[in-house]
Amino acid sequence: MRVMRNTAGGASAEGGSTGRSVEILDTTLRDGAQGEGIAFSIQDKIAVVRALDELGIPWIEAGNPGGSPKDAAFFSRAAEIPLEQARLCAFGPTRKPGLRPEKDPQVRRLLDSGAAALSVFGKSWDLQVTRVLRAGLEENLAMIGETVAYLKARAGLVFFDGEHFFDGWKANPAYALSTLETALKAGADRVILCDTNGGSFPGEIAAAVRAAADCLGPRGGRLGIHAHNDMGLAVANAIAAVEAGCGHVQGTLAGFGERCGNTCLAALLPSLELKLGLPCLPEGRLPRLAEITRRVAEVANLALPASAPYVGTSAFSHKGGTHSDGVLKLSRSFEHIDPALVGNGRRLLMSEAGGRSAVAERARKIDPSLTRDHPAVKALAEKLKTLEAEGWAFEGADASFELLVRRELAARGRGRREPLFKILAYRVMSEHPTGESIACSHAWVKVWVDGQDEIAAAEGDGPVHALDGALRRALLRFYPQLGHIRLTDYKVRVIDGGAATAAKVRVLIETSGGPHTWTTLGVSEDIIDASRAALVDSIEYKLMGDMEGPA
Amino acid sequence: MRVMRNTAGGASAEGGSTGRSVEILDTTLRDGAQGEGIAFSIQDKIAVVRALDELGIPWIEAGNPGGSPKDAAFFSRAAEIPLEQARLCAFGPTRKPGLRPEKDPQVRRLLDSGAAALSVFGKSWDLQVTRVLRAGLEENLAMIGETVAYLKARAGLVFFDGEHFFDGWKANPAYALSTLETALKAGADRVILCDTNGGSFPGEIAAAVRAAADCLGPRGGRLGIHAHNDMGLAVANAIAAVEAGCGHVQGTLAGFGERCGNTCLAALLPSLELKLGLPCLPEGRLPRLAEITRRVAEVANLALPASAPYVGTSAFSHKGGTHSDGVLKLSRSFEHIDPALVGNGRRLLMSEAGGRSAVAERARKIDPSLTRDHPAVKALAEKLKTLEAEGWAFEGADASFELLVRRELAARGRGRREPLFKILAYRVMSEHPTGESIACSHAWVKVWVDGQDEIAAAEGDGPVHALDGALRRALLRFYPQLGHIRLTDYKVRVIDGGAATAAKVRVLIETSGGPHTWTTLGVSEDIIDASRAALVDSIEYKLMGDMEGPA
Repeated sequence: MRVMRNTAGGASAEGGSTGRSVEILDTTLRDGAQGEGIAFSIQDKIAVVRALDELGIPWIEAGNPGGSPKDAAFFSRAAEIPLEQARLCAFGPTRKPGLRPEKDPQVRRLLDSGAAALSVFGKSWDLQVTRVLRAGLEENLAMIGETVAYLKARAGLVFFDGEHFFDGWKANPAYALSTLETALKAGADRVILCDTNGGSFPGEIAAAVRAAADCLGPRGGRLGIHAHNDMGLAVANAIAAVEAGCGHVQGTLAGFGERCGNTCLAALLPSLELKLGLPCLPEGRLPRLAEITRRVAEVANLALPASAPYVGTSAFSHKGGTHSDGVLKLSRSFEHIDPALVGNGRRLLMSEAGGRSAVAERARKIDPSLTRDHPAVKALAEKLKTLEAEGWAFEGADASFELLVRRELAARGRGRREPLFKILAYRVMSEHPTGESIACSHAWVKVWVDGQDEIAAAEGDGPVHALDGALRRALLRFYPQLGHIRLTDYKVRVIDGGAATAAKVRVLIETSGGPHTWTTLGVSEDIIDASRAALVDSIEYKLMGDMEGPA
Repeated sequence: MRVMRNTAGGASAEGGSTGRSVEILDTTLRDGAQGEGIAFSIQDKIAVVRALDELGIPWIEAGNPGGSPKDAAFFSRAAEIPLEQARLCAFGPTRKPGLRPEKDPQVRRLLDSGAAALSVFGKSWDLQVTRVLRAGLEENLAMIGETVAYLKARAGLVFFDGEHFFDGWKANPAYALSTLETALKAGADRVILCDTNGGSFPGEIAAAVRAAADCLGPRGGRLGIHAHNDMGLAVANAIAAVEAGCGHVQGTLAGFGERCGNTCLAALLPSLELKLGLPCLPEGRLPRLAEITRRVAEVANLALPASAPYVGTSAFSHKGGTHSDGVLKLSRSFEHIDPALVGNGRRLLMSEAGGRSAVAERARKIDPSLTRDHPAVKALAEKLKTLEAEGWAFEGADASFELLVRRELAARGRGRREPLFKILAYRVMSEHPTGESIACSHAWVKVWVDGQDEIAAAEGDGPVHALDGALRRALLRFYPQLGHIRLTDYKVRVIDGGAATAAKVRVLIETSGGPHTWTTLGVSEDIIDASRAALVDSIEYKLMGDMEGPA
């Protein structure tokens, strides 16, 4: 692999080919949907397409209309989706052995999708042809050639995915290359080399890409790479392929995909654009990468790993004391890029290991006079250690951390001592059967505000929902502004799985009110009690902000 | 990067240097502990050390005794840990500017750890020296040389970690190399090149490793690599470094570490051993990789991503219909290695996309006469689609899937129709205050078994714990064997976070009885109701197994 880093981040440093760009195809909705735990509804698919379009991804492979009625239904509605720049691609197999393309229902449905590009996959590994497809090697070439020619005569662009190309190239290079040549002769506009099983090293990828480029010559056009992460090398393999000559890269924005996933585009795009000087997205879109990747992960209902390169919430988080100190002195001392370039941000984690510097840095946002050596900061650092040992983790709950600081200051006579409200009592009940013979939850809560009591009750879709409703009803008489906030996310994490249903749980609640969103935390063996703590913090944070202005 | 794949998996294919091996150092307990959300107790540290020792990892970097009293306490107890082969390493900084090593308390505490190797880190990037350390470049060399010499005279092995070596080599190669030379002259037994900020490409890593090897010559001994995953390239960078000459690799078994994590050893080791023919672990240990990696992740209280290369639960899972079909015809058609080599297993996922082949394959374990075209299989595939759309995911809940099959067969007159028990009614209450003025949960449950009713009550650490206790008490009279099972894990996943406390939750319960462990599932807006469904499945699965023998 050549060294081709461009420290200035400006013009291309790649082999002198200034002006070269890389074409990106996102297959979250096709190969990504093969990932475990992922099932996109048509609405989900539309949401993902719009997100990818906003980011500036030029090609979106959105489904397999011949294999899934849902995908066929999606393509029939695709024309209604307002797109700024992206084009859709539909995916499907070559014709079946012994069938003419026009007689093969999967080929017909692929054509019927009306997508701007049709991706046809065919086998490039002889073993797959004889043992899995159970067809002859010549018949396989005919299947590829005839399917591509049939579609090319009736549609816009046709892409050929050489499935298992790299395994095929290792086993029988001449045959693997002949499948690509056949597709190209039949009119394919792109030829994509697939490491379907994810078992190739970057050096092998580079060698095979060069062999394909040599064989196909300039009529090969933009060669494509499609890599899988079974050895943790999918991003490296895409980079090796680009360096060896590929101008088209397939992947999934958040890395979702069958088995270990596909090339994670969120990890790849900043490296290509910022470090290798190869544009992939329209100017000015990269700073939206973190937000849009998180949105796509949310639609997929999979948590984006906190440690995801560039876009994870931990990607620019500093916990070690020396790292927190260093990054405050000089950002690039511990940050390989400015996190703003990809729309992410730096976080100094509130934790035992983060040390007093990080605590002081955060506490100063509340009271600028607090230094690393202030007794309140020392006490807070100690308290954090104890709470963390009990399972509290303030790393993702900034509002609860701020309340912790304010309570510590109040105890030292700085700030309001009297609580804005107290829960005097509550009872939450879940029972079966109820009147309608379905499980139902209800709750009552008694609160104290400034010398007065109030009690209120509510039903809910579960015990926490009922408790939330009752608490807010009871407080509304005193604090009408609580009518304007709403809970926008609720997360539960069992933090001691081995104790089974007696395990401790950590509850994180996200609340929105106007333009602001804040996250609070509760920990307990009792999920109701943990939720109660997080709900109380959420409301108290809102009320304090109203009294004292934005923190 | 050279192509050096060894398809036979036997002798080394690496540049002809047969007999070459790679020395591994795991730093889960030091750099891994800097990862967000990780806090190891001393007991946790002992559990991780024992797990890594069982796997055959030769070096375990277990903490920073000068920076953390907990780590110092750990090392004072380390001699009690029975180890088969692993040796411990303690980590700490060079002396502070202007201080003699023997006067620096961090250096003293590093020595006092009594560890078999002491890892000293020093700055190899001139910018870090002047801007973060705020020391002179010569003074930094003196800090490195004096600290290494002081420790080498009083301890066993000394490893030097050249922090920021690769950034230093790009900025000022002569100075970066001089820090390594200084450590080597002072007696360091290993010199480790660190990509501390994770911003280097494999090609840059390879070039810098070759430069270091050329500069240090044979007295450089085993050069080491320490990479971070900020661009998703940590595994590729470790491989590039090994190919360029490094014989010592640092990483963390599950990839945990600051920001985006360290080189994931679970992803690296199988590639080195099985594909590049470079032994890292004692003979016969690699098949324990999946189990031990999961155990370490469990101690860290972080879920191992399902998509983790080689060791994740999805790493050999097949969901797409054609992939499930293909892998049943010929395993290597969609598997780059035999999953048993790393202690993992193949899973055909029960899902919409998995198709009827996968459903039939699983259903045949219950009734061997079921084929892909059997009406019960068709009905099950349809039912799976509906349930998945409602948020049920049977992929991790084999026991609930088996009950689904049995219920479908029973409805068709094959197998027992009558349920083994029914819940007639339950009520779960959580309240505050209680007699002892703490939050408390209690429940009663009324069951029906074979024409008879029974009611029982229980208290618990939370509402689900109380419900579980009451249900099992009520059934114990009829089924005394329930006294021998216990719940071993309880997981909650909010599957529609946007609906906040009204969101649907998916509950997974793991139950153990004797040598067997099984997992069941429940989905509802109400966490109590979702838990009820999973508890009922768990008990029913046990009772059915007792009646019909192992499934």
